[in-house]
Amino acid sequence: MEQKKIVFDDIINTIGRNIRWIRKSLVKLALLGAGRIGQLHGTNIQNNIPNAEIIVLADPYLSDQAKEWAAGVGIPVVTTDPDQVFANPEVEAVFICSSTPTHADFIKKAAAAGKHVFCEKPIDTDIAKIKDAIAAVEKAGVKLQVGFVRRFDHNHKTVCDVVASGKLGAPNIVKVTSRDPAHQSMDYIKISGGIFMDMTIHDFDMARYLAGSDVTEVMAYGAALSGEGYDKYGDVDNAIVMMKFENGAIGVIDNTRASHYGYDQRTEVQCDKGCVQVSNDLNNQAMISSAEGVEIAKPTWFFLERYNDAFCAEDQAFIDAIIYDTETPVGARDGLAPVEMAIAAAKSLKEGRPVKISEIR
Amino acid sequence: MEQKKIVFDDIINTIGRNIRWIRKSLVKLALLGAGRIGQLHGTNIQNNIPNAEIIVLADPYLSDQAKEWAAGVGIPVVTTDPDQVFANPEVEAVFICSSTPTHADFIKKAAAAGKHVFCEKPIDTDIAKIKDAIAAVEKAGVKLQVGFVRRFDHNHKTVCDVVASGKLGAPNIVKVTSRDPAHQSMDYIKISGGIFMDMTIHDFDMARYLAGSDVTEVMAYGAALSGEGYDKYGDVDNAIVMMKFENGAIGVIDNTRASHYGYDQRTEVQCDKGCVQVSNDLNNQAMISSAEGVEIAKPTWFFLERYNDAFCAEDQAFIDAIIYDTETPVGARDGLAPVEMAIAAAKSLKEGRPVKISEIR
Amino acid sequence: MEQKKIVFDDIINTIGRNIRWIRKSLVKLALLGAGRIGQLHGTNIQNNIPNAEIIVLADPYLSDQAKEWAAGVGIPVVTTDPDQVFANPEVEAVFICSSTPTHADFIKKAAAAGKHVFCEKPIDTDIAKIKDAIAAVEKAGVKLQVGFVRRFDHNHKTVCDVVASGKLGAPNIVKVTSRDPAHQSMDYIKISGGIFMDMTIHDFDMARYLAGSDVTEVMAYGAALSGEGYDKYGDVDNAIVMMKFENGAIGVIDNTRASHYGYDQRTEVQCDKGCVQVSNDLNNQAMISSAEGVEIAKPTWFFLERYNDAFCAEDQAFIDAIIYDTETPVGARDGLAPVEMAIAAAKSLKEGRPVKISEIR
Amino acid sequence: MEQKKIVFDDIINTIGRNIRWIRKSLVKLALLGAGRIGQLHGTNIQNNIPNAEIIVLADPYLSDQAKEWAAGVGIPVVTTDPDQVFANPEVEAVFICSSTPTHADFIKKAAAAGKHVFCEKPIDTDIAKIKDAIAAVEKAGVKLQVGFVRRFDHNHKTVCDVVASGKLGAPNIVKVTSRDPAHQSMDYIKISGGIFMDMTIHDFDMARYLAGSDVTEVMAYGAALSGEGYDKYGDVDNAIVMMKFENGAIGVIDNTRASHYGYDQRTEVQCDKGCVQVSNDLNNQAMISSAEGVEIAKPTWFFLERYNDAFCAEDQAFIDAIIYDTETPVGARDGLAPVEMAIAAAKSLKEGRPVKISEIR
Repeated sequence: MEQKKIVFDDIINTIGRNIRWIRKSLVKLALLGAGRIGQLHGTNIQNNIPNAEIIVLADPYLSDQAKEWAAGVGIPVVTTDPDQVFANPEVEAVFICSSTPTHADFIKKAAAAGKHVFCEKPIDTDIAKIKDAIAAVEKAGVKLQVGFVRRFDHNHKTVCDVVASGKLGAPNIVKVTSRDPAHQSMDYIKISGGIFMDMTIHDFDMARYLAGSDVTEVMAYGAALSGEGYDKYGDVDNAIVMMKFENGAIGVIDNTRASHYGYDQRTEVQCDKGCVQVSNDLNNQAMISSAEGVEIAKPTWFFLERYNDAFCAEDQAFIDAIIYDTETPVGARDGLAPVEMAIAAAKSLKEGRPVKISEIR
Repeated sequence: MEQKKIVFDDIINTIGRNIRWIRKSLVKLALLGAGRIGQLHGTNIQNNIPNAEIIVLADPYLSDQAKEWAAGVGIPVVTTDPDQVFANPEVEAVFICSSTPTHADFIKKAAAAGKHVFCEKPIDTDIAKIKDAIAAVEKAGVKLQVGFVRRFDHNHKTVCDVVASGKLGAPNIVKVTSRDPAHQSMDYIKISGGIFMDMTIHDFDMARYLAGSDVTEVMAYGAALSGEGYDKYGDVDNAIVMMKFENGAIGVIDNTRASHYGYDQRTEVQCDKGCVQVSNDLNNQAMISSAEGVEIAKPTWFFLERYNDAFCAEDQAFIDAIIYDTETPVGARDGLAPVEMAIAAAKSLKEGRPVKISEIR
Repeated sequence: MEQKKIVFDDIINTIGRNIRWIRKSLVKLALLGAGRIGQLHGTNIQNNIPNAEIIVLADPYLSDQAKEWAAGVGIPVVTTDPDQVFANPEVEAVFICSSTPTHADFIKKAAAAGKHVFCEKPIDTDIAKIKDAIAAVEKAGVKLQVGFVRRFDHNHKTVCDVVASGKLGAPNIVKVTSRDPAHQSMDYIKISGGIFMDMTIHDFDMARYLAGSDVTEVMAYGAALSGEGYDKYGDVDNAIVMMKFENGAIGVIDNTRASHYGYDQRTEVQCDKGCVQVSNDLNNQAMISSAEGVEIAKPTWFFLERYNDAFCAEDQAFIDAIIYDTETPVGARDGLAPVEMAIAAAKSLKEGRPVKISEIR
Repeated sequence: MEQKKIVFDDIINTIGRNIRWIRKSLVKLALLGAGRIGQLHGTNIQNNIPNAEIIVLADPYLSDQAKEWAAGVGIPVVTTDPDQVFANPEVEAVFICSSTPTHADFIKKAAAAGKHVFCEKPIDTDIAKIKDAIAAVEKAGVKLQVGFVRRFDHNHKTVCDVVASGKLGAPNIVKVTSRDPAHQSMDYIKISGGIFMDMTIHDFDMARYLAGSDVTEVMAYGAALSGEGYDKYGDVDNAIVMMKFENGAIGVIDNTRASHYGYDQRTEVQCDKGCVQVSNDLNNQAMISSAEGVEIAKPTWFFLERYNDAFCAEDQAFIDAIIYDTETPVGARDGLAPVEMAIAAAKSLKEGRPVKISEIR
């Protein structure tokens, strides 16, 4: 690295990235769904993405809180009719943040209207519907990005970059540890689609992303150990999934519903010549030492604390793909594969045997 | 800690903090100075402080870049005449981000006009001028906050909080390590006021903040070792300063102009019963292991990367003090004391003896 | 913890542990086998175990180096005839460090002669022979300890102790990462019995030790990715094994033959209320930071560097069990179970399906 | 680093280092003083130094415990008359581990008798006596090593080696943090010679060792804050000492008598191009995470736990210097300089001004 004397140049550059003065390339967006994930994307876009702007929000179940929020972040038009979005010629792209069952249909409508699509994960839990939506997108020639946000995290991205650089050789073993901080409500568990579809799906994406290869077979173990009642809904609260990759590597994911100490998100790849791994972001770098012991900070509590910068980077990447007319970094195949893996893992757990992804397709 | 089931409540709360819908309590601000630190505050306020708004920018040397920036972040009025700020009845508070020699005069004008004042550090390098400005603020009954941003950093704040809690007993030894990543230009060094005034001043503030006590004496060692030419301007590139505190504790600061590996910002307090210390924020949590060795990430590069969240928190704290009519967290005494310490340290280095702060007053 | 003023008391106690002055309780031992593991135990016993002494070494293939070594560590009698050991009435216990195929027979002979037995792992690779040897031990009423040395490591023991304390609740997920630093010679791989028998066997022991429970089923994935030729001998160089435990927990082991950066030995247990995990011992605690990056020390190179203190503690534990007539910490069941698991894992890998341990018995 | 296949070669080598079979080069030693530090050296030599042997122990105040200890570690001759040591023609070298006031005289007697000398630190607290003893050693042409054990610690040695390699350029700032775990008894403090002579003296040695340069001036701050009564004996329980080095670097030491969390021993050198620093060895590498917080292990408790390997390496280095007839790694100048620094620091604290080392000589 070259000696950098005039370090303040960086600052102006960084400030520049955070302001909205590149007016000429402003991308006009519509937001579909103003639930929590919709408001998260909406807030980030309005405050932190300088070259994009949400001009309309559509949500059939629009709450008063959501209306107030939309006013606060400066969304000028609010409607309960999603079709107003697709009919609006000013809208160049849509952010689909509505409930999962509506995704595929909204994708098809957006594609038909020639609008680019950012869709929260998963596209659907049904393979056929996903393929249908993808076909519509491909036919229309619009861009599709699926919301696997962890690919934009500074830690996991470093693992991916090191593996992809090849400096450690080919990947041999891919490991993902992923633990949510606290139990979900059983109301959610009833409809979540099970641990592999609602939680591990992010880890399935991570595994493919880090290995740089598709998965051909999975084998899952799981157990309901917490006493919270996951088993009443056919679900588990702890799971381990082994994977075989097309490139010969093998891998494993371990999940726990409630770590109790925070959001535990670690990834690791042992390659031919060495290992790259990431530990958690912590709340701070403090160490408190006394006769009682030595205490350090907990990991950040949950996905908002851990991945908010990644959410912004994800949105920016989608906008950049539109402006520069490049491929989105998380495309159609990336939207489909983790769902196939989730279905295969659930089948494996149920039947007590390894399941090939080809069985699912 | 109680079991948290409905973790998503936090998200809505967090989103709420980031949006601008609390319109009723919007504080109207003026920004004085649109150099890099002015643009930094301005961008943060316009994008991330929901209950404040800059309505006018004044800068006698307004550049085209600054004009474009102001338009980008939505500052409606731009002028080269600072007096327009003080005369504007809508302006409730000013952010003084102009060059140091202008600070004291702007503070007095703002105070005379009944406007609250946020002033970048240092207020001035002359004790009499600082006292004069403080007297004006006190007479007018307006609020004053000085820009010692590190008090709002998640790491140093944890050290302060642990010491202040008393759970480790009283502080015995206070340590601050502070190293900039790269050399300054000699053009800057010529006018910087010397290492103690331009760099250590932040560490003097940290020392007082962490000890919870004023400093009564300093003793400084320093050396120009880099060959960059600091000694041509009577300055040094490495310094160590010992301190005695009113509460009996002792302390030490070590400074280096160019660490070459990033912004090294560590603090530590050994108390009666134990120690609290913070290491650096790193660029990521990766570890790369191979036959060649084990590599981890560097510390964040400089103050913008390390302290940007702290800059936002600092601005928010000032706005909150106005809205809720409370004391600002970094007041007049905090603006004066580090300057006294810097002058005493420079005198100590020159004369080769310990210097009491009372000699400076 | 109580305030300790007279800290030097500890020192005398510690010195006391390291000297051989408790002559009255000296346990007389024989060593069977003077290969590297025999010399390792022999050196540790003669130099670091104060209340034991090797009085005879038997090795049918005694090398000149071994003779010189024996003289050096003060073993007075050396023979090529193992039966001289069993016939010697002074010998109270034997350390079996000969090649694996001789273990079971030596155990039976020692038991018949009324001598306590420390046997290096594995007892045998054949379940029937192990059971036979165990039956002989039980009939004779002598003590048996099997050489699973990692149970005596300061790190893994901490994990076990925390789990066993119950303060984090019951174990949910047990994880073991175990990587040797460098490839084995293919001469060794030919006769090693395969990765699960020669390498994972230690991890199978760890898994049972940390979970505090037996394993009921395993599922193995493996791949020969290094190009070193493991596959020519039906072996793999990377493996992942999932496990189900009797107590409901699930677990996973990952193995790599050659990490290239050192001996990677990490264990982790996620329990009902939290997680306990250990990272590697490093060669030192240094961090070197420059423009090129930040470097820390590698893990210790291999088992001797990492586990030598554990080897001493293991030997001491066996001697203590004799002197105080207590159970050995690693008994017959602990000698059998990991072999069953290794056989089951090999079968799982071969047949591509989960294998219950009950199939093996 | 070359690919290492036959990793077991290392093991035989390592075992070789631990055994006593190099009989031909066995150095015969006498031990003077069987207090705790004498027993520590004696135990290490008898058990872990293969090419040396203590053949006589002399201690005028020989306790029953010491006699029993000597028998245990195999010292054949024990006497209360030190002169028997100097008169014994078989004794090639002496380990002086008696009380400090006896050191200089024993050195002179040993030198006169042509015996090499290992002397525990400090040689004396009086400069003239030290110079006298050194003169005797030089006249006799025997070797002298002074017991500054930390130079043999794996951590500090790494810092020294990196600095000495020059790869980070010249040293700029040298930092030593050194905290004992618990308070000394006031009986000891009465006669200890003060914090700089009894505790900081090791850190003064570290500073010279790490900087690779002598110190020319010190400035000390100190305070008695614990309420334990150090001030009754003119002593302090917290101290900070700044140093100027001949090579232009500056440095600082901070000391606390009672950390309460263990033996805190950190060193750091900022050089022209970067920094090398070491943190503490911990009791283990465990991390325990739960809703209550995240706990890691404490540093090792005190010098025996932290530096026992260094004590062995120190003894081995002295024996090697005899066998190979090379210079000892810690010679006469290293024995004198820290005492000069301690006297200068005490003077500085008393007089409130920087003190040049030249004032002391």
